[in-house]
Amino acid sequence: MIELTVPLGKRSYPIYIGSGLLNAKDLLSPYIAGNQVLVVSNVTVAPLYLESCLTAIQSSKKQLQIETLILPDGEEFKNLTTLNLIFDKLLSVRFDRSCTLVALGGGVIGDITGFAAASYQRGVNFIQIPTTLLAQVDSSVGGKTGVNHQLGKNMIGAFHQPRCVIADIDTLNTLEDRQLSAGIAEVIKYGLIRDNSFVDWLETHMPKLLGRDTEILAQAVERSCKYKSEIVAADELESGQRALLNFGHTFGHAIENGMGYGQWLHGEAVAAGMVMAADLSVRQGWLTKHDLERIRHLLESSKLPIRPPTELSPEKFLSLMSVDKKVKLGIINLVLLNAVGDAHVRNDYDQKMLTETLMNN
Amino acid sequence: MIELTVPLGKRSYPIYIGSGLLNAKDLLSPYIAGNQVLVVSNVTVAPLYLESCLTAIQSSKKQLQIETLILPDGEEFKNLTTLNLIFDKLLSVRFDRSCTLVALGGGVIGDITGFAAASYQRGVNFIQIPTTLLAQVDSSVGGKTGVNHQLGKNMIGAFHQPRCVIADIDTLNTLEDRQLSAGIAEVIKYGLIRDNSFVDWLETHMPKLLGRDTEILAQAVERSCKYKSEIVAADELESGQRALLNFGHTFGHAIENGMGYGQWLHGEAVAAGMVMAADLSVRQGWLTKHDLERIRHLLESSKLPIRPPTELSPEKFLSLMSVDKKVKLGIINLVLLNAVGDAHVRNDYDQKMLTETLMNN
Repeated sequence: MIELTVPLGKRSYPIYIGSGLLNAKDLLSPYIAGNQVLVVSNVTVAPLYLESCLTAIQSSKKQLQIETLILPDGEEFKNLTTLNLIFDKLLSVRFDRSCTLVALGGGVIGDITGFAAASYQRGVNFIQIPTTLLAQVDSSVGGKTGVNHQLGKNMIGAFHQPRCVIADIDTLNTLEDRQLSAGIAEVIKYGLIRDNSFVDWLETHMPKLLGRDTEILAQAVERSCKYKSEIVAADELESGQRALLNFGHTFGHAIENGMGYGQWLHGEAVAAGMVMAADLSVRQGWLTKHDLERIRHLLESSKLPIRPPTELSPEKFLSLMSVDKKVKLGIINLVLLNAVGDAHVRNDYDQKMLTETLMNN
Repeated sequence: MIELTVPLGKRSYPIYIGSGLLNAKDLLSPYIAGNQVLVVSNVTVAPLYLESCLTAIQSSKKQLQIETLILPDGEEFKNLTTLNLIFDKLLSVRFDRSCTLVALGGGVIGDITGFAAASYQRGVNFIQIPTTLLAQVDSSVGGKTGVNHQLGKNMIGAFHQPRCVIADIDTLNTLEDRQLSAGIAEVIKYGLIRDNSFVDWLETHMPKLLGRDTEILAQAVERSCKYKSEIVAADELESGQRALLNFGHTFGHAIENGMGYGQWLHGEAVAAGMVMAADLSVRQGWLTKHDLERIRHLLESSKLPIRPPTELSPEKFLSLMSVDKKVKLGIINLVLLNAVGDAHVRNDYDQKMLTETLMNN
């Protein structure tokens, strides 16, 4: 088992990464505050892992009132209506301020459960047990929680750090291929914004990653969580470098929203978005064509889309991009590349170049 | 004009109290971040004060995009559905993370707008312009924001401090008598939990307060805000003494919820709740009967109810109390009195005594 720490002073917490962690006794219990626990999961994950999770919670020495709530599966349910189902449950079983929420599932379950924990009685404890690669390498770490609004992704939410993150690599064995690739998109992102040598590593190990080699998966999760926790520690509330994590995301959010939540997986949209951001970087003369091809190739070898959907016209695309959170004073801030491993937030790109990128991808 | 500061380090902010502040030029503008402002008000307050407020905002030297949203009036609208109207508005006019929300109205407008500001894009700036006595002396100060859930009051929310609070005493002239008295309940509360001499002062000046003497009103608002900001500065997230501010509130919330939000005003429910808390304190032998009578008399002279509604049975009442945020590990923490001006959070009261209080009030 690997243990990392997200160093945030009083709010520091550990990330545990390894095989068989869901069945590990006493790993969870120190992080359960109070004597009331609500496990939130979805219809896909619950049949696979809820029982193990409940057993682990019950092995705690404390007398606990344990409740479960199973939500529908999919990004299209990440909204205020579903959020309110969590509040309904918490209030109907009379959970108080000392309770703990456990998010057992992918990014949607983590984000919505985290936001419920941030808002219920103005804040209760929560634990992340991510069961998808995307959630393990990205969304479960760093405290961003929230739900979508019809007019924009993740527009409603809070920063609320978990007490711990438990990433059991074994849960990735039940992941659909498409979901695995979507997670790999975020893994690749860390290399592209931060570490050229990690991109080398990914190029070498992609077949084993796609083949779900436990050791290689654990290494990919560890390195991703390490990058993420370094960035989060330096800039918890995204006033600076944390914005680099949004590489490909402004384009990607437009795809997700424009196609209807749940049609494109988040990681798929981010993959196409990263190509678009790299394409714009090339048009500006900031990135070489060779690097763009390298990025395209790596994403393609990961079974990810490298083009946005043809349904979205450039006008529509631009309009969707301009409701992203990265817009400031009317200007869309974009994460663009100077090289593989070297990203910057910029608003000094040429609008015409952006239009060309939208028209030619 | 009186200026107080809520000392919270980086999040410190001023409270301005006085007559004619809504028309004061350049008071607001330093607190407007970004160039987008949404003023949220309600159908009662907007016809009276929205124009002045917009004029004050427009007098800022900046080029601003100013939008308004007028909500229905009443505690029964303080819910997720109304909250989402604010998000709808913000997104339809494409407000970004640098925008500012202005809450122009009473406690409901302040609480719901504050929670919208806490959650929109994970947090934007906001300004409180409270126009009721209750909001000026209590809810606009301290950063508690939120909405009600069908099963409990203020169950969903966040701590989110405003950038400034502007309490224009003149706005109290248009307040209904019933609303004025409801605000006085919270003013009396500060005396009861903290300062016997302030209770003396209130006993002396109650006729002038009810007569809306500007000078006396300003003094009452100033002293209340001073008590509140001292308490908030010492315990922003309510892990300790801030809980004293809930004197009468656990009983009061049960009344508000049990009767249906909007039937009893918050201050009215708190008034009856404070009598009940004092009654329990007397039954325990912690408070003298003479003090209880003094409290009853002061509230009565303020035109406030001193008994809960007869519709709520003791069983129903207890059940409603047990979903309050002050419940920890199944025990209802109550703020009880040792004397006028001396309050403590306690859970060592006798359950039978509590039942007697519920049966005999």
